[in-house]
Amino acid sequence: MQILRQLSEFLFSGVPVLAILAFSGIVLLPVLLPVAGTDHALEDSTGRVPRNVTDFERLALGNVQDGSARLWAFIFAVYWVSFVTYFILWRSYKHVSNLRAAARSTSDVKPEEFAMLVRDVPVPPPNQTIKDSVDSYFRALHPDTFYKAMVVTDITKADKIFQEIEGHKHKIAHAEAVYAESKIANRPEGTRPTHRTGFLGLIGKKVDTLEYCNEKIKELLPKLEDEQKSTLSEKQQRAAFVFFNSRAAAASASQTLHAQMFDEWTVTEAPEPRAVIWTNLPRKIYDRQTRQTVVYLIVFVTVVFYMIPITAISAVTTLEQLRKKLPFLKVVVDQPLLKTVLQAYLPQIALIVFLALLPTLLVFLSKSEGIPSQSHVVRASSGKYFYFIVFNVFIGYAIGSSLFSALQKVIENPTGIVTTLGSRLPGNATFFLTFVALKFFVGYGLELSRLVPLIIFHLKRKYLCKTEDEVRAAWAPGDLGYNTRVPNDLLIVTLVMCYSVIAPLILPFGVAYFALGWLIAKNQVLRVYVPIYESNGRMWPHMHTRIIAALMIYQATMLGIIGLKRFYYSTILAPLLAISLIFAYTCHTRFYPAFAKTPLEVASQQLKETPNMSTIYTAYIPACLKPEKLEDVEVFEDAQSRTTSRAPSF
Amino acid sequence: MQILRQLSEFLFSGVPVLAILAFSGIVLLPVLLPVAGTDHALEDSTGRVPRNVTDFERLALGNVQDGSARLWAFIFAVYWVSFVTYFILWRSYKHVSNLRAAARSTSDVKPEEFAMLVRDVPVPPPNQTIKDSVDSYFRALHPDTFYKAMVVTDITKADKIFQEIEGHKHKIAHAEAVYAESKIANRPEGTRPTHRTGFLGLIGKKVDTLEYCNEKIKELLPKLEDEQKSTLSEKQQRAAFVFFNSRAAAASASQTLHAQMFDEWTVTEAPEPRAVIWTNLPRKIYDRQTRQTVVYLIVFVTVVFYMIPITAISAVTTLEQLRKKLPFLKVVVDQPLLKTVLQAYLPQIALIVFLALLPTLLVFLSKSEGIPSQSHVVRASSGKYFYFIVFNVFIGYAIGSSLFSALQKVIENPTGIVTTLGSRLPGNATFFLTFVALKFFVGYGLELSRLVPLIIFHLKRKYLCKTEDEVRAAWAPGDLGYNTRVPNDLLIVTLVMCYSVIAPLILPFGVAYFALGWLIAKNQVLRVYVPIYESNGRMWPHMHTRIIAALMIYQATMLGIIGLKRFYYSTILAPLLAISLIFAYTCHTRFYPAFAKTPLEVASQQLKETPNMSTIYTAYIPACLKPEKLEDVEVFEDAQSRTTSRAPSF
Repeated sequence: MQILRQLSEFLFSGVPVLAILAFSGIVLLPVLLPVAGTDHALEDSTGRVPRNVTDFERLALGNVQDGSARLWAFIFAVYWVSFVTYFILWRSYKHVSNLRAAARSTSDVKPEEFAMLVRDVPVPPPNQTIKDSVDSYFRALHPDTFYKAMVVTDITKADKIFQEIEGHKHKIAHAEAVYAESKIANRPEGTRPTHRTGFLGLIGKKVDTLEYCNEKIKELLPKLEDEQKSTLSEKQQRAAFVFFNSRAAAASASQTLHAQMFDEWTVTEAPEPRAVIWTNLPRKIYDRQTRQTVVYLIVFVTVVFYMIPITAISAVTTLEQLRKKLPFLKVVVDQPLLKTVLQAYLPQIALIVFLALLPTLLVFLSKSEGIPSQSHVVRASSGKYFYFIVFNVFIGYAIGSSLFSALQKVIENPTGIVTTLGSRLPGNATFFLTFVALKFFVGYGLELSRLVPLIIFHLKRKYLCKTEDEVRAAWAPGDLGYNTRVPNDLLIVTLVMCYSVIAPLILPFGVAYFALGWLIAKNQVLRVYVPIYESNGRMWPHMHTRIIAALMIYQATMLGIIGLKRFYYSTILAPLLAISLIFAYTCHTRFYPAFAKTPLEVASQQLKETPNMSTIYTAYIPACLKPEKLEDVEVFEDAQSRTTSRAPSF
Repeated sequence: MQILRQLSEFLFSGVPVLAILAFSGIVLLPVLLPVAGTDHALEDSTGRVPRNVTDFERLALGNVQDGSARLWAFIFAVYWVSFVTYFILWRSYKHVSNLRAAARSTSDVKPEEFAMLVRDVPVPPPNQTIKDSVDSYFRALHPDTFYKAMVVTDITKADKIFQEIEGHKHKIAHAEAVYAESKIANRPEGTRPTHRTGFLGLIGKKVDTLEYCNEKIKELLPKLEDEQKSTLSEKQQRAAFVFFNSRAAAASASQTLHAQMFDEWTVTEAPEPRAVIWTNLPRKIYDRQTRQTVVYLIVFVTVVFYMIPITAISAVTTLEQLRKKLPFLKVVVDQPLLKTVLQAYLPQIALIVFLALLPTLLVFLSKSEGIPSQSHVVRASSGKYFYFIVFNVFIGYAIGSSLFSALQKVIENPTGIVTTLGSRLPGNATFFLTFVALKFFVGYGLELSRLVPLIIFHLKRKYLCKTEDEVRAAWAPGDLGYNTRVPNDLLIVTLVMCYSVIAPLILPFGVAYFALGWLIAKNQVLRVYVPIYESNGRMWPHMHTRIIAALMIYQATMLGIIGLKRFYYSTILAPLLAISLIFAYTCHTRFYPAFAKTPLEVASQQLKETPNMSTIYTAYIPACLKPEKLEDVEVFEDAQSRTTSRAPSF
């Protein structure tokens, strides 16, 4: 647990980013501020600084005269920031890699380390169930290490019944608490809680909640059992989990190509039981590839053209249209003042709604790709979100025109992007400084105090929660929220890095942002958030690549800006881009395999206890299929292969 | 053996290419020839065909008028050729894949299937030899399946002594044959053969060959033994072969990531013993990466700028210069006629010498990359050669200017290449038709009759060979020569494909070329060539990719040509390029893994006999380290770990 905490903390807090910015600042502030501050580019012909030029602008690159030898200091600064970044990223990758190895080689028994996910199981011969064909295939290939296989089943129907039962159980607990309360306060016999059976409990017959629910459960339980049985035997899907009797065997098997044809028996490491997305498992390989292509296309279109649907929606949803379609809005819309305000802000409101829904949309899209685990979905959607915000907030704003027309320019003249960025960025320094400061004060304030969750919690406790379980559920802070948090932090990194040399005064704000972020993360990870699943730091390579992407945007920008200052040595910066690429490639080949696969070294560590294989197996049984008592696991298995025993043996 | 023969035959002969061209021809000839032949673009204003227009030109795309609806037939033809290619390539990949699986799952024991190559062994602790650290590492990770490890040693010195001994043995055999011959012909006691010990046997002391060589061998044998021992114990390198007691274990282990750090203990499948390049094995991973980058750079420069060094060399080596530096050439050079001829052709001679040396140069470069096996080197150099000839012979000639200036144009205007190819290619149809025909008549004639090898063989037998072994060595036809043969065939494919629609009459020549090629290959593979090593069809994915590359060049060209005919529906061809990419990607994901790795299915086939592990182990001992008797293998092993037993145990 100690190691896992360290790991989450490291990823969540952006310590490496803090280090990069701090080390950059230590050199850049004392070197660049005097160099820029004592030059005279912003002075007018009489040698005076105009009034509208702030001190912030005087201490920036803009105050250095064209072609001045002072620009050497800025070139040196770019090199300094780049090499600090390489150094810190290398150290961090090593650190995370070691933490991951330590986390994975602890002596705790983790079910996912004994399992392997098999997809694209071929259609079995007519006299065999899928379960039997999986069993016989893997028993033949891994005679000494194969333990058991569990075929994925279509649990939609069983899960529906199960959720219904759970809902009734929950209602009973709630009603009992209400009943007990009423006894104490009012009359000793109390009021038996009632509710209506219709829509949302508003219409329909009034019934006694406790009796009604108990009856319902009694009715549903045999139904569930029947459904469980038929699910297990008849709804087997062409995917399975295969369990091995040692971690090394599972690690080795999941990395080995099994079938001659790539579209059969594809194996991967098993995701953690809590993170499995069951509905995605049976998707075939071609289905997955097609879905991925379509999703990438949609995301690309969203990133580049997102303003178009927004404009379209806001055009359709003019007030007049709304008034016609939703007559009950008339009262509001017909007031002249409100009408003016609404008419002016409707497009902005559409934009805000879109931006608020975007992370959810991206998670949905990533899930549709056919990814087998939640943690992978989070990584995938976080990556998409990063591109969206960097392209739209940063590049889009900086270039100052719609991204679409900028893209057109880029296609016409690929090297022009450097000059464009170079000419537009310095002017926006103040805006982005404010942006970072705002994020710092408002964003972290909210995060630290967790004000919104607190209010919601108190409202819930007062009016809704009656049982202990309900209070606990209301208090639960949820997961770490990597998918929006990481890209937002990475945007700040990109911003601060890009302006670090243009206007070094942004650095203290960046350092402050991540320093506070670090303190908060230490607190939140330790005391607040409870991760739902653990991916042992697989988020890091993802962040690493994007920090390098930020660095390369920065290097290209600086090449453009210093070039525009008519400083002919600016091409000295060009090799940095190549160095960044080589650095990224080297890190990838050196460290990434240990994140994508389990090294045998790590998997072969001794366990402190002999693993209880049946517990490991049980961990992967979906809740709705779990027999009431654990000893019944055998039933689960028998049911899975039952069809065979019925079939005639040849 | 049957399967292997089928496999080599398939690859060597280009059956798939033959099928592609034949199926294309069946439709293209009857459809396109009438469509082109009955149009009038080449007629002059009086409606007559000018004299200098050949029938060949009248039956080609050039005779179709601009914007004519007849061009639909040509667009259909491009689609037909493309889909025929997809279909045949898919079938072929499947076929080769199955053959490979069959070849690999035969019940013969092949040493490479029980072994795994380990590179980047970390520096062992001071009290351990490399052999010990390898042993203990793999014994710990594969406790049940590990058999033995063999550390790679630096055999340069031992091999030198060994070769010397072999040379003397060879001399003795030769001398004995000469001696025996002299006895019969001349006098019963015969003449004992003698030779001189100095340079090339021309100068130095005259000695009795038999006595001298026997003495030398006696002298060298103990030296070799000493060297063997010191090599085994003191010249251990940081690479090793690890042997497992089953094929499945070896296959699985070689696909599993072993170390947490990627630059330690990297494992791959073992190459065949005969194909191992010993000197490349101990190269470290960073060394390999650097070398690869440098080699790719050199090859790129060679492909693009190869005319520059040739011109430079021919400028330096003018006759005057040669005369000064090599005075003995004066006699030749001073003759006026010879001088004129030489002066005129020296650059061409330099070019021919360069082109003749190119394959050797490319093999040398590929070897320098640090590739561990001969068969991989052949694939790598064949790939490089393909790019060279396609870029220089085909594109270079077609664009009609130096490739360098063409590249400049491409960088300035990327889509221009399509138009350039489109405008230049049709004019060269006759030239390339002749080229293919020439290849067909001259190339295959030489190949089939093996005239040059025959002459060399008879000369050798007459004047040099005395013993049986020598005759056999002289007769040996050598390997299949994939590295120049495959790229040359692929050039023909590219040519014929690109002109198949422009001038369909080229198709019969292409079909004839590959049909004869197929017959010859059947004969040569069956009766002539003896492959030195077997890679079980790993050449195919390589050829597959390049055929798709040829197809895409073709599609781009046709897009340009039909576009230039002012036919606005020509963009209908654009999707073909995307389809080709998707096809290539699908084939790669579907079939390639089974070529790059051994599927467990295949490795788990039963063997007909229990493998003799010590024979497998012995197969990897280099000839110069092999003890005289096979039972001494234990000695080899003891020697490898001896240093430990000496070291104090802690």
